[in-house]
Amino acid sequence: MKRFAKLSFAKLTGGVAAMAMVAAFVLPTAAQADDQDVIDYRQHIMKTMDEQTAAVGKIMSYAIPDDNFASHLEAIALAAQTSLSSFKEEVQGGESLPAVWENWADFEERMNKFSDGITAAAKLAREEGKDAALNAAFAALSCKQCHDDYRKK
Amino acid sequence: MKRFAKLSFAKLTGGVAAMAMVAAFVLPTAAQADDQDVIDYRQHIMKTMDEQTAAVGKIMSYAIPDDNFASHLEAIALAAQTSLSSFKEEVQGGESLPAVWENWADFEERMNKFSDGITAAAKLAREEGKDAALNAAFAALSCKQCHDDYRKK
Repeated sequence: MKRFAKLSFAKLTGGVAAMAMVAAFVLPTAAQADDQDVIDYRQHIMKTMDEQTAAVGKIMSYAIPDDNFASHLEAIALAAQTSLSSFKEEVQGGESLPAVWENWADFEERMNKFSDGITAAAKLAREEGKDAALNAAFAALSCKQCHDDYRKK
Repeated sequence: MKRFAKLSFAKLTGGVAAMAMVAAFVLPTAAQADDQDVIDYRQHIMKTMDEQTAAVGKIMSYAIPDDNFASHLEAIALAAQTSLSSFKEEVQGGESLPAVWENWADFEERMNKFSDGITAAAKLAREEGKDAALNAAFAALSCKQCHDDYRKK
């Protein structure tokens, strides 16, 4: 059943990522595949924030018109809201440092602060426009502070 | 001014993508940098959809709990809503085939259909839950059909 669902989804979407998902499935043991699923899942969420933050950067640097500014912040906010839950299960590996789970209370607090901050910035951008939201967006997207402590160099 | 904004943003966020953005800025001519910005921007949006579709795939294959199902569909919907505009300027390159602009009416129609479909699926997932939205999500996420015609192999 599990296998059927995975293969069907890959066939339908035809995405590169979906293919990687199937590749992960055929790892030798079920336990490994499950841990890899957890790592892959949180990385999909983090990479989403990377890509959308880069899109915001293109707008902030005046390289691209700002029509989609609020949408990009909303997409980051959605990803941010899902991100903490993707770390709740302690699975070492990927780019996460052990500090994530050793200092869980701090990690959780900072992730929640980030999620709340970018959600507020997105709301401001949607309701009052880019200029009103710029400072809040800049402040929320201080990714480096947490990455320094919780992500492998 | 343009340069200042780019550097400041990269410094603040510290993201890999933001660094790549600065690298793009120092290309020899302004024209090349602008085209590269357009290509980068549409790729950030497409990669967002890739990552979030992969996250949905993890849930659909029962590898990951379904708590975030609606949020992932909403993030794909937001990216889909912004995607068409990122192709409006005809800039060849990246993974796009010339067919995007040669067959613009068809490309536009299919992108709008995708955007409408995933937006409806996301709404269904948020309001009525995963099971109610599964078929609509599967139908919307048929990425392969357009990629076959409009993306380089």
